[in-house]
Amino acid sequence: MAVPRFAAIEAGGTKFVCATGTSPADISDLTRIPTTTPAETVSKVVAYFNKVKEKGGPLNAIGIASFGPVELDDSSSRWGSILSTPKPGWSDFNLAAAISSALETPVGFDTDVNGAALAEYRWGAAKGCDVSTYVTVGTGIGGGTVINGRPIHGLRHPEIGHILPPRHPADVAFAGVCPFHGACIEGLASGPAIQERWGMSLSDMPTDHEAHDIIAWYLGHLALVLHAVISPRRIIFGGGVTDTPGLLDRIRGKVRELAGGYFGPGDLIDAVITAPSLGERAGILGAMILGENAWLNHSQKSKSQREGRERA
Amino acid sequence: MAVPRFAAIEAGGTKFVCATGTSPADISDLTRIPTTTPAETVSKVVAYFNKVKEKGGPLNAIGIASFGPVELDDSSSRWGSILSTPKPGWSDFNLAAAISSALETPVGFDTDVNGAALAEYRWGAAKGCDVSTYVTVGTGIGGGTVINGRPIHGLRHPEIGHILPPRHPADVAFAGVCPFHGACIEGLASGPAIQERWGMSLSDMPTDHEAHDIIAWYLGHLALVLHAVISPRRIIFGGGVTDTPGLLDRIRGKVRELAGGYFGPGDLIDAVITAPSLGERAGILGAMILGENAWLNHSQKSKSQREGRERA
Repeated sequence: MAVPRFAAIEAGGTKFVCATGTSPADISDLTRIPTTTPAETVSKVVAYFNKVKEKGGPLNAIGIASFGPVELDDSSSRWGSILSTPKPGWSDFNLAAAISSALETPVGFDTDVNGAALAEYRWGAAKGCDVSTYVTVGTGIGGGTVINGRPIHGLRHPEIGHILPPRHPADVAFAGVCPFHGACIEGLASGPAIQERWGMSLSDMPTDHEAHDIIAWYLGHLALVLHAVISPRRIIFGGGVTDTPGLLDRIRGKVRELAGGYFGPGDLIDAVITAPSLGERAGILGAMILGENAWLNHSQKSKSQREGRERA
Repeated sequence: MAVPRFAAIEAGGTKFVCATGTSPADISDLTRIPTTTPAETVSKVVAYFNKVKEKGGPLNAIGIASFGPVELDDSSSRWGSILSTPKPGWSDFNLAAAISSALETPVGFDTDVNGAALAEYRWGAAKGCDVSTYVTVGTGIGGGTVINGRPIHGLRHPEIGHILPPRHPADVAFAGVCPFHGACIEGLASGPAIQERWGMSLSDMPTDHEAHDIIAWYLGHLALVLHAVISPRRIIFGGGVTDTPGLLDRIRGKVRELAGGYFGPGDLIDAVITAPSLGERAGILGAMILGENAWLNHSQKSKSQREGRERA
């Protein structure tokens, strides 16, 4: 049997990143397609992968790591859909079904952050960790958690940016930018929340500006909540805001201060907080894993059916 | 082969509850032994189970659902130990090793709340749920989470009482009773925190007393954090404080209010919050499951060893 090859889509609110391959050492056909309407975006993505297939042969499955919220309950007819989103036209659009039927391949589907968390677990900073969380801090704040090799789903999927933290003493007046909660962690520490308060990005502010302490306080609270609820061995901070020099160390300091010695010795809990190993490729590599999982499930089902027929 | 029988210990800070059996329909030999020094407590527990064995025949394994913090990393030589605790003599005592070697049986070991969460998942309010959390609100506040049938461990084990929530507007002056964090959720909403502020238990206060709203606010925040981090299908509130009439409904109201429509329709998120189905027996039944798991692991290992010898 030929070596399998997977299509991967990191479906974002501004662009769809597409690629094929099987691992960090094997990524090909990387391209970016702007996110417009669902119909236009999907038709461009499908046309692209059809060209890839003409050139390089069949694709065994496709994986989609998507912006959310999304429906992940595989007993639901809406599985694979984007749920209610401010992005025009995308609410209730079944992205997984549209792509899978046009390309005639099995499809894997999860959130973008669950994808990134899976990739960091398999190839990156969370290798061998029974519990790890990938946090992205950019336009929004979200996170994906992998436990014993599988991303958490549950009732919906986690949305860790929407925790309501106590306010930093020097930041009590700002109302926050989250349309749902105002002053949740996303409303207080995302890129737009930083722009709204200070008119520039965190990395453009001098290192003694109080903004650094304020943002580290909220992200430190987020890390503390993760310790208390799931006790991760790694909390991987990705996304534009966390590229700010010195921010991860400030977050480590806040966690030590807030933990009061409770979640383990300081050096142990310092080591939990880390940058991504896979950088910006975590998302697309996660989508590739979702494609592989879809292919494995599909192969397993086909095998069971064949055996069933043979027994009959 | 005879039907297996398990010993179960719910190891608490004030008493050790002991029993034998296999399920809620089959609990026998229930007794309570006061928690004193480790040596005295263990010797009484061992004497008790030795008498049970004389009367009823061998026990296949023992499960211990313990007060914490505990060491759960099975690659550590301290696996099965109580970690640093204010309880005199118990810090660094290896409870699992002491019981297992005296009774000469395989031993399963986890936190008391992970045990209760396992029992509610198998027989109770969280049956069939991929993600569920058991919260206890009493002398302390803790929680155990079961994901796809297994309790979460991670770096340490979760300690969900130690989240720092925003303060209720009518409760900003109280410093909180947690020796580590002061005003964490345990420091603000546990039984001792209620006593400290109002000199009586929550159920003794009139229904229009502001304490009800204040406690529901903190426990609602805890539930909201759980939604954001792990999206449980069930959050089961057990422990003395949550027996207060009307409290679960007040918590549901707070979650709706704080969620801002974000974690699903109101009736869906109302249904997540529930009382335990197994009542006070969740802990001892959880210990029984830990015993069963230890027995299954032990049988599996013995089988592999036998097969290895046969092949050799």
